[in-house]
Amino acid sequence: MVLEIAKKARSASLDLATVSSQVKNDALMAIAKNLRASADEIIAENKKDLLKAEANGLSKPMLERLALSPEKIDGIAKGVEEVIALPDPVGEVLDSTVRPNGLKINKVSTPIGVIAIIYESRPNVTIDCAVLCLKSGNAAILRGGSEAFNTNMALAKVLSKSIKEAGLSEDCVQIIPTSDRSALNELLKLREYVHCVIPRGGEGLIRFVVENSTIPVIKHYKGVCTVFVDKSADEKMANILTIDAKCQRPSVCNAAENLIVHKDCAQKLLPQIAKNLQDRGVELRASAKAKEILQANGIDCVDATSADFQTEYVDLIISIDVVDSVEMAIDFINENGSGHSDLIITEDVQSAEKFQSKVDSSTVYWNASTRFTDGFEFGLGAEIGISTDKLHARGPMGLRELCSYKYRVCGEGQTRGTPAF
Amino acid sequence: MVLEIAKKARSASLDLATVSSQVKNDALMAIAKNLRASADEIIAENKKDLLKAEANGLSKPMLERLALSPEKIDGIAKGVEEVIALPDPVGEVLDSTVRPNGLKINKVSTPIGVIAIIYESRPNVTIDCAVLCLKSGNAAILRGGSEAFNTNMALAKVLSKSIKEAGLSEDCVQIIPTSDRSALNELLKLREYVHCVIPRGGEGLIRFVVENSTIPVIKHYKGVCTVFVDKSADEKMANILTIDAKCQRPSVCNAAENLIVHKDCAQKLLPQIAKNLQDRGVELRASAKAKEILQANGIDCVDATSADFQTEYVDLIISIDVVDSVEMAIDFINENGSGHSDLIITEDVQSAEKFQSKVDSSTVYWNASTRFTDGFEFGLGAEIGISTDKLHARGPMGLRELCSYKYRVCGEGQTRGTPAF
Repeated sequence: MVLEIAKKARSASLDLATVSSQVKNDALMAIAKNLRASADEIIAENKKDLLKAEANGLSKPMLERLALSPEKIDGIAKGVEEVIALPDPVGEVLDSTVRPNGLKINKVSTPIGVIAIIYESRPNVTIDCAVLCLKSGNAAILRGGSEAFNTNMALAKVLSKSIKEAGLSEDCVQIIPTSDRSALNELLKLREYVHCVIPRGGEGLIRFVVENSTIPVIKHYKGVCTVFVDKSADEKMANILTIDAKCQRPSVCNAAENLIVHKDCAQKLLPQIAKNLQDRGVELRASAKAKEILQANGIDCVDATSADFQTEYVDLIISIDVVDSVEMAIDFINENGSGHSDLIITEDVQSAEKFQSKVDSSTVYWNASTRFTDGFEFGLGAEIGISTDKLHARGPMGLRELCSYKYRVCGEGQTRGTPAF
Repeated sequence: MVLEIAKKARSASLDLATVSSQVKNDALMAIAKNLRASADEIIAENKKDLLKAEANGLSKPMLERLALSPEKIDGIAKGVEEVIALPDPVGEVLDSTVRPNGLKINKVSTPIGVIAIIYESRPNVTIDCAVLCLKSGNAAILRGGSEAFNTNMALAKVLSKSIKEAGLSEDCVQIIPTSDRSALNELLKLREYVHCVIPRGGEGLIRFVVENSTIPVIKHYKGVCTVFVDKSADEKMANILTIDAKCQRPSVCNAAENLIVHKDCAQKLLPQIAKNLQDRGVELRASAKAKEILQANGIDCVDATSADFQTEYVDLIISIDVVDSVEMAIDFINENGSGHSDLIITEDVQSAEKFQSKVDSSTVYWNASTRFTDGFEFGLGAEIGISTDKLHARGPMGLRELCSYKYRVCGEGQTRGTPAF
């Protein structure tokens, strides 16, 4: 069954690759329209999932992620309409040369082909991913979590109907109608038909995909982001950026998990920064050096273990250390971080330059919150995920990152060595 | 042992990533110099490998690939000197934006990090890959074939010595001192330290790497390249391009394996084209339709099976079919080809446009030989391989394809939501 889906996706992708922007946008418009028109049906199916999830004891935040309302569905439809307005990423001439022998070589963006997206409970991902794949000319195979099964099947109906209305094959977007792990395992081996797998979800799901896929995977393990307060940091900035990075939305991957402070300013700045965080409900986990300073200022904290500095809490907890230099800060991050987003707060241009060059992360900030690592904030207009990989795409992935390229070479009979006759 | 190598490579890569072009070029100059100075020692070690390989009954072409001579070593050194002259691919600003909130976002090219290259008998690959990785700021882990073991160890000495002379850590290039498969298997799981694996060799090696690696792989399975002679093809061009694509160097991946001819010109053009090939020693394997035409013209051929059209012969053999239209030619290639290099010979702009858009291959030619798919011919100045993948790199891979990127974001205290206080 999965093989059949993959073969159909490959076949559909070959046609979809060269479809006009107009037709792709027609499909997107139909999706937005039909989502709103089918809101009642979708919500009825979503209720079934919610009842089952509650019975299974799913946590409250997870239930909230799963739940759809007319407002949420309208929000998803609006998201689709925003993608319509974005430029088509396919067919862009990325590079162009004429060789001494007269060969004209154009490097042109193309869709990747077939993209499988493996995700967990949020049903909006079904529509977001389908739409971004369609717009970039890729056929999509979606495999959502079991908790959202009925919701996803209702969304699949909307997608098929809409895609057909635009005159495209419904095989352009297919949902695997089971959340069986063996079906996933089978899918992950179909490298002849599927060109890329994007897993979205917890670390466990991502590890499963990486360890079992023979198809290239673009992934994001976790976001262990660090804020470094350098000795020349502006005091106000150090306070506000730390609060924003940790507290503005602690449940997301670009929120800070570690705070490290230069020893020359730790006595002066750390107590106030720590107090700000504590006032906002943040638990402080401190190294011996940091603890000494905090306790001397009457601020409670718990001992940080070395594992804490590599942990993505996604919660109101922060690990704190004191370092001797910008070089030590860089080493700390390259050792403990996850290559996601890291920040130096400093007024010293040379420290900033060194930090931004040497920290091996997708996004390295100087005097701005780590929370900006996001496709919309970067101006990509959309986001299918954030990559902590280094191949193909790193950081926020928009429509361009869903593209590959090909070389179109035009000649007048050039050969490598065969003489004319 | 492999874990130790990988950890050292990761550590060396962090320093190498920001080393100046001058220092990297110094290392390359030292490699070229020391290669020439150590030619006798290298050749003595190479003799050991050759004796063993002969005793093991290695084929003559394989022995030729393995053998080094003073001339070959000088050629390798010259290749190194050519890389010195190429621009440094690291630090290029690929994109630059200022967001409405004042954030300055620069997308800057960086090395990938640690690259493992798994290859077979040719010892020149050891130097080529080491040099391309160094120039692009990547630490390299090289794992050659058992046949070249002694040669590779001698080359490793030259590499270590030269890299140290330039003031870099010898861990920048390491050779795994065993050709044990279990060591390879261990390496392929070290995704915490190794960022990319490039296998170079036969399909068996590549399949092994793909099926066992949890590190991203950039690969090239095979080159099943097709020449399509359209109904409006220029007769002379059809003859010369077919000869060049098939015969100029049949042992390479960009040589043609399939010839398909439009039915409207098959009677007129196929006999002469086939005769040209046969005169050059090419075995013709024909479909029923092609056979009918060939036999009517007194040209011997054997029956092609459907598997033949998906086979990379790397030899003087070609599979021939007749198709009804350019659409059928496109379908034939997308079904049977390997996504490498395909050619349409036509005077019809619309057929060419359709073919170049719809054939899903890394390089699609119009009126030029498939043999041009090559880093040097494309003007990349070097080549570490050709990718038939669609992620990260497709087609010939030069120095730029050995790079990733990072975002450097500069602000003045911007937050996502926290107000100033």
